[in-house]
Amino acid sequence: MSNGKLENEYELAVASIRALCIDSINKANSGHPGMALDAAPIVVSLFKDHMVADPKHPNWANRDRFVLSSGHASALLYSLLHVTGYGLSIDDLKNFRQLDSLTPGHPEFGHTVGVDATGGPLGQGIAQAVGMAMAERAIASQYVDGDKLMSHYTYCLCGDGCLEEGISQESISLAGHLKLNKLILIYDRNTSTLDGPTSNSMSEDIALRFKAAEWNVLHVEDGNDCKKISDAIGKAKGMSNAPTLIIVDTLIGFGSKNQGLFKTHGAPLGEEDGKFAKENYGYDYPPFTVPEEVYSMFRNTFAKRGEEAYEAYLEAKKAYETAHKEDYKRFEDAMNGEVSSYLPKFPSFELGTSKASRDSSGKFVAALHESCPFSFGGSADVASSVKTKVENDPNFSSSHYEGRNVNWGIREFAMGAAQNGILLHGGLKTYVGCFLVFSDYMKNAIRMSALENLPAIYLFSHDSIAVGEDGPTHEPIEQLAALRSIPNVDTFRPADERETWASWKLALESKDHPTCLILSRQGLPLLDGSSIEGTSKGAYIVLEKDNADLQLIATGSEVSLAVKVSSLLEEKGIKAEVISMPSMEVFNRQSEEYKSSVLHLPYEKRVSIEMLSTFGWGKYAPLNIGIDTFGKSAPAGKVIEALGFTAEKISERILNSIKR
Amino acid sequence: MSNGKLENEYELAVASIRALCIDSINKANSGHPGMALDAAPIVVSLFKDHMVADPKHPNWANRDRFVLSSGHASALLYSLLHVTGYGLSIDDLKNFRQLDSLTPGHPEFGHTVGVDATGGPLGQGIAQAVGMAMAERAIASQYVDGDKLMSHYTYCLCGDGCLEEGISQESISLAGHLKLNKLILIYDRNTSTLDGPTSNSMSEDIALRFKAAEWNVLHVEDGNDCKKISDAIGKAKGMSNAPTLIIVDTLIGFGSKNQGLFKTHGAPLGEEDGKFAKENYGYDYPPFTVPEEVYSMFRNTFAKRGEEAYEAYLEAKKAYETAHKEDYKRFEDAMNGEVSSYLPKFPSFELGTSKASRDSSGKFVAALHESCPFSFGGSADVASSVKTKVENDPNFSSSHYEGRNVNWGIREFAMGAAQNGILLHGGLKTYVGCFLVFSDYMKNAIRMSALENLPAIYLFSHDSIAVGEDGPTHEPIEQLAALRSIPNVDTFRPADERETWASWKLALESKDHPTCLILSRQGLPLLDGSSIEGTSKGAYIVLEKDNADLQLIATGSEVSLAVKVSSLLEEKGIKAEVISMPSMEVFNRQSEEYKSSVLHLPYEKRVSIEMLSTFGWGKYAPLNIGIDTFGKSAPAGKVIEALGFTAEKISERILNSIKR
Repeated sequence: MSNGKLENEYELAVASIRALCIDSINKANSGHPGMALDAAPIVVSLFKDHMVADPKHPNWANRDRFVLSSGHASALLYSLLHVTGYGLSIDDLKNFRQLDSLTPGHPEFGHTVGVDATGGPLGQGIAQAVGMAMAERAIASQYVDGDKLMSHYTYCLCGDGCLEEGISQESISLAGHLKLNKLILIYDRNTSTLDGPTSNSMSEDIALRFKAAEWNVLHVEDGNDCKKISDAIGKAKGMSNAPTLIIVDTLIGFGSKNQGLFKTHGAPLGEEDGKFAKENYGYDYPPFTVPEEVYSMFRNTFAKRGEEAYEAYLEAKKAYETAHKEDYKRFEDAMNGEVSSYLPKFPSFELGTSKASRDSSGKFVAALHESCPFSFGGSADVASSVKTKVENDPNFSSSHYEGRNVNWGIREFAMGAAQNGILLHGGLKTYVGCFLVFSDYMKNAIRMSALENLPAIYLFSHDSIAVGEDGPTHEPIEQLAALRSIPNVDTFRPADERETWASWKLALESKDHPTCLILSRQGLPLLDGSSIEGTSKGAYIVLEKDNADLQLIATGSEVSLAVKVSSLLEEKGIKAEVISMPSMEVFNRQSEEYKSSVLHLPYEKRVSIEMLSTFGWGKYAPLNIGIDTFGKSAPAGKVIEALGFTAEKISERILNSIKR
Repeated sequence: MSNGKLENEYELAVASIRALCIDSINKANSGHPGMALDAAPIVVSLFKDHMVADPKHPNWANRDRFVLSSGHASALLYSLLHVTGYGLSIDDLKNFRQLDSLTPGHPEFGHTVGVDATGGPLGQGIAQAVGMAMAERAIASQYVDGDKLMSHYTYCLCGDGCLEEGISQESISLAGHLKLNKLILIYDRNTSTLDGPTSNSMSEDIALRFKAAEWNVLHVEDGNDCKKISDAIGKAKGMSNAPTLIIVDTLIGFGSKNQGLFKTHGAPLGEEDGKFAKENYGYDYPPFTVPEEVYSMFRNTFAKRGEEAYEAYLEAKKAYETAHKEDYKRFEDAMNGEVSSYLPKFPSFELGTSKASRDSSGKFVAALHESCPFSFGGSADVASSVKTKVENDPNFSSSHYEGRNVNWGIREFAMGAAQNGILLHGGLKTYVGCFLVFSDYMKNAIRMSALENLPAIYLFSHDSIAVGEDGPTHEPIEQLAALRSIPNVDTFRPADERETWASWKLALESKDHPTCLILSRQGLPLLDGSSIEGTSKGAYIVLEKDNADLQLIATGSEVSLAVKVSSLLEEKGIKAEVISMPSMEVFNRQSEEYKSSVLHLPYEKRVSIEMLSTFGWGKYAPLNIGIDTFGKSAPAGKVIEALGFTAEKISERILNSIKR
């Protein structure tokens, strides 16, 4: 684009979008003009010429997906959603970054129509897009003639920052390995980050890095050349062997006085520079004004294409329904997240048996695989340990997209974020797993599940120092506290097989929040008093005592231990009830009446017992028996004894505390 | 090596090490023989021909460093430490993975002499090695003729798992950018991980990926050819332009019946297969027996070389001391972590002023830069926001290794883990920074700081919903709870400039634990009652009341808010003291007497106020005023009001709770 002239409809559209970004950010006096301005031609080309989506049916299953991984360029996305007819008004743009507006600082899925993914935490957008592309291939392969139900592209726009984050490498390595050819990543290379030029901290050859990960790589040298950008996207769509990276060289803050400089990354241009930039674009309209030609261009391209595609899809789906009634029904249920009729039947749980909760979970996973043909899960290279692997089913791979066992590789963070992408996409019921201690590696992905209101399921096994020989690096202490503290996450640490199945069922029934199942490596005896109903309330009395003196609150492997402690205390004339509290969060949501029926003794008469950090237990009891140091390497029984988790040592501690 | 014959000293040594690994793991009936067996020739070649270290002076400043990033191959390292004379006995090897033994499941720094870094959490070893190599170059460049004080190699051994983790990419990208030519990474490519062949989840071209990151890449096709491995290491040492990756192709579980199969990764061979493997090696000695020739070979090579180098270094240091007295003194202090005489002088803090604690911290950082010439820090591309950048000092770069401003790039996890590497190395006083919410990205590195007893300093700014416009993805809620729950971490959330300086001083004085400083974006008024002494005790009464009815416990920006709440309550006839609790952990360590002098009202008479998750506050008060949902995008004041954090709303909540 030569400054000062708007030679064609592309240029006018790009200038309008840029002007809207400048105006929104100036009005809010907050935001990130840098990339919003330089990437405008990319997004305009994509929406005008390629994206298949219908603003009137924004959640249509087979639409193309678009992930703005650099969420700080939100003004750009909102401006596009405005001109393309998604219902965002000029007033919404004027309310950019204002309280409860539809145009928050970073795009939020579920909040603004047309936003396919929440963006902001860098790198995760790429992983989410990989998850969407995985979902697309998996779904297309799970049904007879599945390409008629599911066949679309996933686009993602990222910047330098996303590619510096390690999760980007995990994601591209996986996407290349899986040959996700319908994934197109556009890299806005403006060579600037918040602190300065990218060259301050990075000099790698990105094209070569993607080639090493088996991607196709295209390059557009002039980031203002919409035609070339559009051609590159067209070429990428034709690639059948691998995902494609399109590198587009741009000038950050294009058109402003400081174009090309990192200063434009996160500071509003202000009125004067905004005017200067608009003049540069040859754009002469009042603030927040879009010429009718721009609206009509998108109506005649993007909206028309989307509407036609949507209608054609409806037709195709109708034909599909006639041809494949059962598959159709299943597909609809899957896309609607309707799992209630696909739940496995509960077995009878036998007293006298003992099972590690990871094994109980594994049994559930196997049953779910049978009952729910759209279940889809795996682990970060610990399938045999976390028991996520289902026998007699191929691995999900480029030669078996119908496989429902996912080998995520040792890439916890990408695994979590890609699971979010799969759920944003819809159509699969997912679970992912790793050791509890390595939930650390994916913590912000779990947070994103919660923020995006996604019913992600995380299986975290090896849930205490009972890990034993692997020692302190592999023994969780504080991880459950960290998970419990994330808003909108439900954690369950089930005490036996019955509670494990009950927890799994609750996890599957969630529509709006992630669930973490915290699973033991060692065997847990089936408890006489354990209860499915009780688990669904988060906590319940598992061992009742008339005229109890004390209440012991425990979770997971420590519930059976607490029952033993209660026996020892009884020998000393103290009656201690045992409460199983698989889920603090679920319990906290119960009625005051229920809560006080469970915690019926006063605060001072309660003791918590959990073989993990005591952090967070002070809410329920003043005496918290736990582990606030790191673990040790030795056979599990020895570590447990050394750290005081025997019935004898615990009852002694309780007796001592009563004496005082 | 041809099976069945031990043709030279190399082969005998390798076979001995392999036999020791088999025996240790079999005896423990736990451990990871797979890589321990296949990587033995690599480590033997490295120690025999190249490593410069002196078992008699294992902490010698200028020794080469060796990081076993694949910490699960610990048996291999312990066997080497045994034969090279680090003091690990055969009995120690027999005690592999036993309680409190010197040979725990994964190598632990500070626990076993000769272990340069804790290993286990995959990928972090590579980042730690990068940190060590950065320290080596920085130190060599900070002193006149610094190469005489510091000039060594850093070696790191990793496997496929480490390279799947995203942190590996962050680390190699940074190391390539910094041209750390004395860093040599050896990749044991056994193409197997726990769940199966690496090809299940990865097919990227690793050599190309490293070339893209500007590394030299060498390849040894036969992982049993010690001579070729040694030659490759020799060649890598000669590289002056960039770090070097040596890819060594190996067969996992070499020599055992299942060699080449992932089954050998984590399961002991057992007696029969152990015998089989030893026969394969041509190794015919009783269990736990090492032929004298092996000991003497390492004495004549590794130990001799190390001893001579150590003596030469002592001489050189003596000459250096004569020539550069001041630099020498400073170097010694730096290597000993002796900072007490390099602390900045405290300014006078003026009532009536207001400063964001990130700015107070920035002022401290600038003062520290002046007073302590071996301070070294930076941020993950948010230097201007977290205020880590020191003016008038170059960035640490390949052309300015003397620069003490580090641009880590948007690589939080590698930043944290590399900081650990720098501290393991010694000689620099470090700090790293990012937004509090993105502490999530580096959580396990912080845990590793704590586990390795390193005085790492983490600066986390933008510490609440007062972030404002950037919205929920950028507003921390649960992060401080997560940090507080990690054992051996001290967190401080200072309430004003005085508390910020006091917290910084405590962070610098730590010898054995990391510290997180939680800093505000918005201004905080200097408090009349704030105290350096009080901060050093973790909590203290900042506003006293005779015959108080209530105690309000607050941190950071909420302390001045609590003072206002107290005023409002006083109007209603309720006397509320205010406690500032910058550090829960430090307070918890105080005497019972001190603690009850601060928390002198009973539990039911206390209220906590913190604009973050309430998780963890139940220990101190039954009424916890905080935020247990995600934040919002709007100007800070609006968000704060919407989420109830005004003095009016809080005092109302307290009054309501009293009425009930």
